[in-house]
Amino acid sequence: MYGQRIQKWDRAVEWPLTIAAILFLVAYATQIVARPDGVVALVCEIVLITTWALFAVDYVTRLWITENRWRWFSRHLLDLAIVILPMLRPLRLMRFLTVIALISRNTGNMLRGKVVLYTVGATALTVLIAGLAVLDAEQDGGAITTFGDAIWWAFVTITTVGYGDLSPVTAAGRAVALGLMIGGIALIGVVTATLASWIVERVSDQSASTAAATEAQVETLRGEIAELKDLVRELRPAS
Amino acid sequence: MYGQRIQKWDRAVEWPLTIAAILFLVAYATQIVARPDGVVALVCEIVLITTWALFAVDYVTRLWITENRWRWFSRHLLDLAIVILPMLRPLRLMRFLTVIALISRNTGNMLRGKVVLYTVGATALTVLIAGLAVLDAEQDGGAITTFGDAIWWAFVTITTVGYGDLSPVTAAGRAVALGLMIGGIALIGVVTATLASWIVERVSDQSASTAAATEAQVETLRGEIAELKDLVRELRPAS
Amino acid sequence: MYGQRIQKWDRAVEWPLTIAAILFLVAYATQIVARPDGVVALVCEIVLITTWALFAVDYVTRLWITENRWRWFSRHLLDLAIVILPMLRPLRLMRFLTVIALISRNTGNMLRGKVVLYTVGATALTVLIAGLAVLDAEQDGGAITTFGDAIWWAFVTITTVGYGDLSPVTAAGRAVALGLMIGGIALIGVVTATLASWIVERVSDQSASTAAATEAQVETLRGEIAELKDLVRELRPAS
Amino acid sequence: MYGQRIQKWDRAVEWPLTIAAILFLVAYATQIVARPDGVVALVCEIVLITTWALFAVDYVTRLWITENRWRWFSRHLLDLAIVILPMLRPLRLMRFLTVIALISRNTGNMLRGKVVLYTVGATALTVLIAGLAVLDAEQDGGAITTFGDAIWWAFVTITTVGYGDLSPVTAAGRAVALGLMIGGIALIGVVTATLASWIVERVSDQSASTAAATEAQVETLRGEIAELKDLVRELRPAS
Repeated sequence: MYGQRIQKWDRAVEWPLTIAAILFLVAYATQIVARPDGVVALVCEIVLITTWALFAVDYVTRLWITENRWRWFSRHLLDLAIVILPMLRPLRLMRFLTVIALISRNTGNMLRGKVVLYTVGATALTVLIAGLAVLDAEQDGGAITTFGDAIWWAFVTITTVGYGDLSPVTAAGRAVALGLMIGGIALIGVVTATLASWIVERVSDQSASTAAATEAQVETLRGEIAELKDLVRELRPAS
Repeated sequence: MYGQRIQKWDRAVEWPLTIAAILFLVAYATQIVARPDGVVALVCEIVLITTWALFAVDYVTRLWITENRWRWFSRHLLDLAIVILPMLRPLRLMRFLTVIALISRNTGNMLRGKVVLYTVGATALTVLIAGLAVLDAEQDGGAITTFGDAIWWAFVTITTVGYGDLSPVTAAGRAVALGLMIGGIALIGVVTATLASWIVERVSDQSASTAAATEAQVETLRGEIAELKDLVRELRPAS
Repeated sequence: MYGQRIQKWDRAVEWPLTIAAILFLVAYATQIVARPDGVVALVCEIVLITTWALFAVDYVTRLWITENRWRWFSRHLLDLAIVILPMLRPLRLMRFLTVIALISRNTGNMLRGKVVLYTVGATALTVLIAGLAVLDAEQDGGAITTFGDAIWWAFVTITTVGYGDLSPVTAAGRAVALGLMIGGIALIGVVTATLASWIVERVSDQSASTAAATEAQVETLRGEIAELKDLVRELRPAS
Repeated sequence: MYGQRIQKWDRAVEWPLTIAAILFLVAYATQIVARPDGVVALVCEIVLITTWALFAVDYVTRLWITENRWRWFSRHLLDLAIVILPMLRPLRLMRFLTVIALISRNTGNMLRGKVVLYTVGATALTVLIAGLAVLDAEQDGGAITTFGDAIWWAFVTITTVGYGDLSPVTAAGRAVALGLMIGGIALIGVVTATLASWIVERVSDQSASTAAATEAQVETLRGEIAELKDLVRELRPAS
């Protein structure tokens, strides 16, 4: 029953929350990149507060309708932090990962295909979020002052190239960089691991004569032995 | 029938297109590195236009003779972009990958050998293309101004070392850099995965006594059981 | 008997040594970061000497109660170096790895889970130790002069990003950097390998119909053959 | 017969060539690092020429006593280049890899153990060779002017950290850097692959109940079936 209620809620908020995330992205990016005055600034502020309220309502509702509240709470501390701490605000865009998951659900059930789609989507999203966040942190008195530079820096960092032509000097900017670097290590890991799994599989496919015995083959053997048993049983004197 | 027509076309344009790619490379490199005037500049321009026309004709013909034009079109959008967009012009040199494929076809059917050949060939080609493209983008008012520096920068980037002694400052140069960095992640991935597949294979070869049962062995077992069946059949009273 | 004595000693010093390591960390960090004068400096010095004495006593006792002293000595040369050489002093904090091991022992027996816990713990510990050590080496006349910069530099180095905004210039600082870089290569290796093992397992799970024959299945086959043998034995004329 | 002659030659020159390589290393390092005058310079020059002569004699003799000279020649082009080209002179130190191979031969037959030993040995050797070679190339008018800086730069490069505090500006120095970067990619690859093979093996060890059927088990099955055959044969009427 609880599971059903959560699934129902999931389906109900799927689109509203995705739209809220898009609106949040637009307002957040506008505020940081264009640094607007007057009406535009006010609209951005209103959008940010409204979408925040939506995410907060979503969090509270989920906590409410779940079976074991304490367990859910302790396993969703990051969700709480994202809702409460203003500095983790950009992470609300991680909502788009759910959209990537939805798309990947419709691309058949090849694990590696899903991994590739997720990797590309998550990397692009991470670069965008980190670019906006580092620009927010650094543009006043820091080292990264334009949106182009911020995105360029994010790519240079996540690929672990690290030219050093731009590097954050504020504490907030460096915190963003840490996240990106860890993302970069993970990116190299996922790319390599996916390729390794593909090559290992292909190489073992090639050498069919030395391939491992499969379950299907053992099944065939069992059939043979069963037939043999029947033959032996027929031999018994009809006593 | 369609498949045959495409194969015929492939064989017919194999050499003309490779020669066109070589001419294109020479003209493109001359134009960027030597920055010629007068007759040489004119010859370069003519060669570039002629080879472009050849690639365009190849694209149109392929689209024409394929069975399902829409499907082919949607799956070859990059080919279209390379033919149409001048900034993707250097990617025409990717034609040489077909030549590497031809060479690797003749080197037996070891998957890992092919992977190594492809990796070396594609890396060298990528460094050359990126070096030329970044020089084209950066030499007027950018940070990379000689061909030597451009190739050096391309190597430093694709290996993810990223000294930062040279780093692009123009948008076009940074776009080239993005491609190289992604190539670098892929390069590390391919090298590691190939080595991993080799080590995993060797380690499992070593421990023969704990090696997985092979299909051949199960085949032997089946033979044994078949012989046993015959023995039992012989036992039946000739009724 | 010797093994029992060592186990007893292990249990006896588990907590005292961990507390000593915490005190050592506090005193060492205070001395380097705050550079205190007067009483605080004296207290730090006393704590450092006391904890050093504890580690030395632990080393000597272990050497004493072990069965084969020469073998133990030759296999614990690093332990000796950490106790004797002042410049390897920060490595005494590696004691905390034992604490991570204790925690991971209680997290079930998933190998990959333990690898993840160890990787995160060891990376955080390495960054902390290296940050303190490089600050110690570089803050007088070197390039890294604040604790924040030292930790930032340690992260930039261990992820192999290497911006170069900060890089050690003293011999001691560069020695610390070498350790961090080797740690970085190991970090990438462990992350990738864990992911690869996970993906390889998942991919092979997916293709259940072509899964390798398991020991359990062969066991079933053996059972079938045993039953068959009994059937044949029953056929023998009761001679 | 040819094989025997080569083995004999191998054994005969094993020690002389290793000593020649040590002398070459000392003279080469002295010449580059200390830049001596007078007698010392003369001694260095004599040692360099003498050891070169030894390597050349070794090359010619091998070419002479091999069965298929042309095949040997085409497969040992690098050996020829190292003997002939002065700029590849430092690669004569690769002779020490043979020494590592000798040591690893005595450490049992664990493939992974050998890989680790080889990796550590080859990395240390590569850093030393590259450090000397880059110092030779850069110390007059280049960016790397002391031996300490050269070794530091080599480590920063081979781990792909690439701070950029030092980076070669001469063509020869950059050529050395290329070799180091490729070595760095290989280093990451080997470390990751070895760890991956270890983790994959451990994870599959853990799940013993789902372990792949081994050759030994199938052998047992075959034994069971053979016994069964004997039982059936006994049943035959002694006709």
